Amino acid sequence: MSQYVPPIGAPRDAIDTPALLLDRDRLEGNIRRMADLFRDTPIRLRPHFKSHKCVEIARLQLEAGAVGITCAKLGEAEVLADAGVHDILVANQVVGPIKIARLIDLERRGDVMVAVDSARNVADLSAAAVGAGVGIRCLVEVDIGMDRCGVRPGEPALELARVVAASPGLVFMGLQAYEGHLQEVTPYEERRRRTLEDVQKAVDTRRLIEAAGIPVAIVSGGGSGTHTITGHLDGIDELQVGSYATMDAAYAAAGGVDFENALTVLATVISRPASERCIVDAGLKAITSEFGVPRVLIDGASFHEWHEEHGELLLEGSACELQVGDKVELIPSHGCTTFNLYDTVHVLRDGRLAERWAVAGRGRTQ
Amino acid sequence: MSQYVPPIGAPRDAIDTPALLLDRDRLEGNIRRMADLFRDTPIRLRPHFKSHKCVEIARLQLEAGAVGITCAKLGEAEVLADAGVHDILVANQVVGPIKIARLIDLERRGDVMVAVDSARNVADLSAAAVGAGVGIRCLVEVDIGMDRCGVRPGEPALELARVVAASPGLVFMGLQAYEGHLQEVTPYEERRRRTLEDVQKAVDTRRLIEAAGIPVAIVSGGGSGTHTITGHLDGIDELQVGSYATMDAAYAAAGGVDFENALTVLATVISRPASERCIVDAGLKAITSEFGVPRVLIDGASFHEWHEEHGELLLEGSACELQVGDKVELIPSHGCTTFNLYDTVHVLRDGRLAERWAVAGRGRTQ
Repeated sequence: MSQYVPPIGAPRDAIDTPALLLDRDRLEGNIRRMADLFRDTPIRLRPHFKSHKCVEIARLQLEAGAVGITCAKLGEAEVLADAGVHDILVANQVVGPIKIARLIDLERRGDVMVAVDSARNVADLSAAAVGAGVGIRCLVEVDIGMDRCGVRPGEPALELARVVAASPGLVFMGLQAYEGHLQEVTPYEERRRRTLEDVQKAVDTRRLIEAAGIPVAIVSGGGSGTHTITGHLDGIDELQVGSYATMDAAYAAAGGVDFENALTVLATVISRPASERCIVDAGLKAITSEFGVPRVLIDGASFHEWHEEHGELLLEGSACELQVGDKVELIPSHGCTTFNLYDTVHVLRDGRLAERWAVAGRGRTQ
Repeated sequence: MSQYVPPIGAPRDAIDTPALLLDRDRLEGNIRRMADLFRDTPIRLRPHFKSHKCVEIARLQLEAGAVGITCAKLGEAEVLADAGVHDILVANQVVGPIKIARLIDLERRGDVMVAVDSARNVADLSAAAVGAGVGIRCLVEVDIGMDRCGVRPGEPALELARVVAASPGLVFMGLQAYEGHLQEVTPYEERRRRTLEDVQKAVDTRRLIEAAGIPVAIVSGGGSGTHTITGHLDGIDELQVGSYATMDAAYAAAGGVDFENALTVLATVISRPASERCIVDAGLKAITSEFGVPRVLIDGASFHEWHEEHGELLLEGSACELQVGDKVELIPSHGCTTFNLYDTVHVLRDGRLAERWAVAGRGRTQ
């Protein structure tokens, strides 16, 4: 006997713990809501795979009208290509001969697009594409304030765009400009003000490049926290929203977005050391901590402290009735990294197990 | 083509990134050093599997004289049993009918021991053991100050020991008392003072139980940060040390232990946005954050900020020469949870790939 595989139709509490649960109706509602928001607008959706890493969810997003899928790593793109998804943006720099060879192979199987931010990487990509006889679509990544990857907006971006446009084997497609530093700024009005200001740098850069005679087909940016702002800016073409599909406690706490939480971790009370405390079997290896504590879906219970294998809850009122063996659901503060801890997500409908999906992109960090 | 598998003998820089690296000579040196420390003492080593999750490392620890292996979860114990390890302590409460059935199955295949801290769980284990016709060895977990699982020292522990000893199908073996709250206390003298004080509660409880006529075969405790203290206390039998085998930056920073760092994450510089900053391809999904920043093994480089898929390094002096495509090694602040992000660890000898080991216990949180 090994890890228990619950039968389809099993009630929630028959699922062994810790386990990742996903409410299918809420997931579908979120995907529909985002699609509806942009259905009759110039904006195209290219949802981010790094959030959920499940090909089943990517397919639901494509069926709802997404033009393709964004992912963070080449390994995720390979998972998507294996699942029959073809229009894939790898929204990061693909660096070094091993990865560039994989990128070329992926281009032969589908249609990839990649972010670039250095002339050296552009030269490597160009040489490999020419050698293989393929064309690789590139977005020049522009740093509009996150201080991560990307060239500066304006002239530096134009300069790299010219290099890409002049590089054999590469196709300059446009810009990537992700305002990741603003996704959870509160209050929302402050988020709105700063997003308009920073994303405008990407739009201005687009105009500069177009004025230089280089066509710009795509400016891609936006996230679940800013789609209502970036998604209405003239000069933005694609949104690479991710977390909206399942949501998490951090996005919910930041507010300003209208999606339902579909993702939880199911845990079991394994110890009741004191009347006002209980210990559950979900710690740092079952639910991630970098965005703060999870929300506990039991009145009077709050998550207090992480251990590697345990979570400590503080209890008040009726929550003090929790006993050893009882199940509790926790909403992760950060869904993306919590998904990455699991091989399987249990998909529930009306509180019963409807499907088990592989988290196929888990661990595909290369 | 998919994720790149480097050939045995490949130099470090031929390994694609992010990748988990383990220096075999240092690993073996650490295992030997710990074994030597306790070779001619009454203390037995039962190293913790949750730290590294690799059966190859567990085998090296057993070959060096360990009496068995400790693990955190039943899923890890199953991995160990599949690898032929038989004397296994599951150092946590095994709760609920699904897990108890798995525990019984494991007992049929080997010889497990489990921690208990509630009469209810003891009753469930007893009923299952009797039903299956097996005997399950139990340690009563005592909370000596960590405020996690466990009954209070003294009378409450004696009371539960009596219940276990009187339960058919169960064998009362002794106590588990882990001073997890003291492992990284600095300065070491303060760690020593508090460890002596807290672990004494376990020893006193042992004496109380023995005085009541119940034999105590095992008191298990200690960790990599306190083995030099707890390992010399009369009344302690087993140490469940884990991190010493590979070490990590947090244990090294806390000091007071004499092991070499054997574990690193190899990453690639993917962006050079400014002369004093670079971005590597290892973020929260490649190296964990809860114990602080990793140590960068390049003079003048320091880890500044995590993103989900990226790490940002600050550069000074010669580190400013780092270029896109260069490799850097990072010592994780927390080895246990970083291991849990990888399917494979690359074992190096003299800077070349010697073996690839599966992190077989990864994700076995159930």
